[in-house]
Parts: sequence; C-alpha cells; structure tokens
Amino acid sequence: MRQLLLSIFLALCAMVANAQDTKVVYHITTGIDTAVGALNNIKNHLHADPKAKIVVVTNGPGVDFLIADAKDSKGREFSGLVSDLAGQGVEFRVCNNTLTSRHIDPGKLLMETKLVPSGVAEAAKLQSKEGFAYLKP
Amino acid sequence: MRQLLLSIFLALCAMVANAQDTKVVYHITTGIDTAVGALNNIKNHLHADPKAKIVVVTNGPGVDFLIADAKDSKGREFSGLVSDLAGQGVEFRVCNNTLTSRHIDPGKLLMETKLVPSGVAEAAKLQSKEGFAYLKP
Amino acid sequence: MRQLLLSIFLALCAMVANAQDTKVVYHITTGIDTAVGALNNIKNHLHADPKAKIVVVTNGPGVDFLIADAKDSKGREFSGLVSDLAGQGVEFRVCNNTLTSRHIDPGKLLMETKLVPSGVAEAAKLQSKEGFAYLKP
Repeated sequence: MRQLLLSIFLALCAMVANAQDTKVVYHITTGIDTAVGALNNIKNHLHADPKAKIVVVTNGPGVDFLIADAKDSKGREFSGLVSDLAGQGVEFRVCNNTLTSRHIDPGKLLMETKLVPSGVAEAAKLQSKEGFAYLKP
Repeated sequence: MRQLLLSIFLALCAMVANAQDTKVVYHITTGIDTAVGALNNIKNHLHADPKAKIVVVTNGPGVDFLIADAKDSKGREFSGLVSDLAGQGVEFRVCNNTLTSRHIDPGKLLMETKLVPSGVAEAAKLQSKEGFAYLKP
Repeated sequence: MRQLLLSIFLALCAMVANAQDTKVVYHITTGIDTAVGALNNIKNHLHADPKAKIVVVTNGPGVDFLIADAKDSKGREFSGLVSDLAGQGVEFRVCNNTLTSRHIDPGKLLMETKLVPSGVAEAAKLQSKEGFAYLKP
C-alpha cells in the first residue's frame, strides 16, 4: 500500500512538473556594471525557453539599473533593454527597504518596475509559495 | 481521471504551501565586509515576514563574521547583531571543513553558532529534504 | 476530510524526500580564480554526502576552467580535478551561448563537459523539472 501510494505520488509529481512552465526568480543584488550581463542572461534564457516566467527581484546595489537615466561605467543605458524584456513578460520588482535606506525617490524608477516591501522576503516567497526556481546571475 | 487526480494534487499543493511558513537558507560565503549587508537583509526579511524560519549557512570566508571579536574594515562588530537575530530564531551554522582547512579553532566561534560537517552539503540538504528556499545575499 | 488529505500528502512528501538522494546544481559564473574553491566545495560536498548527485552548470566567465590547458593566476590546472570529480559522477555542463558570444571553440573544452544551449535555462530547468537544489559557490 505504501509503495502504491508512493508510485501514484511520484507519477503525479512528474505530471505536474512537466505540465507547468518553468518559473524563475533572478535575484540581482550587485552593482550596475553587472546589470548588462544579467539582462543578457535573461534574454538568452527566454530564447532557450520562451515559456519561462521570469521575475527579477532587486535589492541593495541591484536596484541601480532600474533608476531612470541610469548608465553603467561604459555609458550603456538600461531603459530600452528593460522595456524589451517587460514586453516579453519579465517583471521587475524593487526592494522598498533599499529605497528607504538609500534615500532613493521611488518616482525615479523605470515605469516597468513594481515596489515590494522587501527584496529578500519576495525572492524567498516566490520560491516557497509559488514554486519558482532561483538564479543568482 | 488523470485530470481529476491532477486537480486534487494541485489543490493539495496550494493548501500545503499556504499552510506552511516560509523557510529560507541564507548561504554566506563572502568575506567579512559583506556581512553587515547580509545581516541587515535578514533583519529586513524578518520585519517583512516575521514568521519566516531563517538558517544562515556559512563556509569559506563566510565564516569570518562568526568568530568572536571579529570586526569588518570599518571596525563594526558582529556579536550584538548575531545575538539579536538568534533571539528572533535565526540559526547560524558553520562549515567544519572550512575551520579545518583554515586552522580556525572552533572554540573561537560565537556561542550562537553550530558546527556542521560541510556548509555546502548543509545548504543543499535544507533545500532538498526540508523545503527551504535559497538566498545568496 | 481536508485535514486527512493534507496529512496523507505531508506523509507522502516526507517519505519521498527521505527516499531520494539529494540532487544539486552548482551554478558557476565567476572567473577562473574562484574555480579551485568551487571544485573543493564539491569535493567536500561528496565527502559529506557521497550519494549526492551534482551537476555543475557554467556560463559567462564560469566556463573558463573547463577549457583545456586552463590555469588560474597561481598556475593551477583543472583537468585532473575535473576528471576526478567526473569519475565520482559529477557532470559539467557548459553554456553554448557563452561560447558563441565569446568566440570559444567548443573543441577546446575538456572532454568531461557537455554543451547545453543556455546555462541559465539549464540551471532553472534542473530545479524546476528535476527537483535539484541550487548552490552558488
């Protein structure tokens, strides 16, 4: 009986896992000079797996590329890249604790962003409650 | 029939996920100058989600802030912050392989810490066997 | 009834989790000078948990140590270490997007490696579809 239940359960797990599209949280916490690389990762990810649901969660220096007019040390801008990815369904969530402690005006964020109370709590909740995989680019 | 089983299973998954508090492993492997940031992340995490169960797993340079009298390059101490978080239920686990290879006396660790044989094996096991989410701060 | 189903489900979860060996993806994206540390992590991991299934997924600068004749800044080579770990069942997967964008000839990779279309999509899929835990060393 135990074996039977286990088999049914495993079969159900496999069915469910294969039936669902992959959901992934990209946790970005490093400064603006790593942002182009991370966004390229996401572009490549969607190319390899177009049905993947991707949510970017940022805190600490990770929020910097989502501020309007942000440029990295090579002068590259982010608004076009962010807007393209948002058009493909990528969501960008920004840690409000970070904005408060760093005195950043939420009004300066790109319009594709959404505030969450805590970046780390958000990245944990997505994994725990919504079945997201985790990537630290 | 397959659809019915799938629906039951998904409903059960949702019930279980929502019934349980979030459990999170913070995997800290970087040096002492990143430790204040990581501990602030945890403080903010608990503020946003007071019921979250947080276990900090450290290995490599990540263990440094858990040595008694440790200070970062700005002279900031850690024992008070660690003790406060431990009082809120946060656990601090230290990789014994790291202590051995770096010749660190376990007796020098803060009393809130607990030794585990391998930090990486611990962080994997918490995810795999106990349903923890993973964060790399 | 709801409580009964929940109890059965939780018992099944516990049975399944404990019955299965831990599976872990090591996501390596940093340059060659961090590779020895990451491979030592894996060696220690297998020592602590010999049945763990470990898959290394590399992209960006993380692929560098898997190129034949690669040496880090201390002159340490990797082919012996990679070959030892492969002998213990560790798999090494390399992001083809990275090779293309960095003009690296796939023929130069160590023979223990396997190409995947996208490193990030692979690391997400292993978590999402195959129940792997995630570690960023």
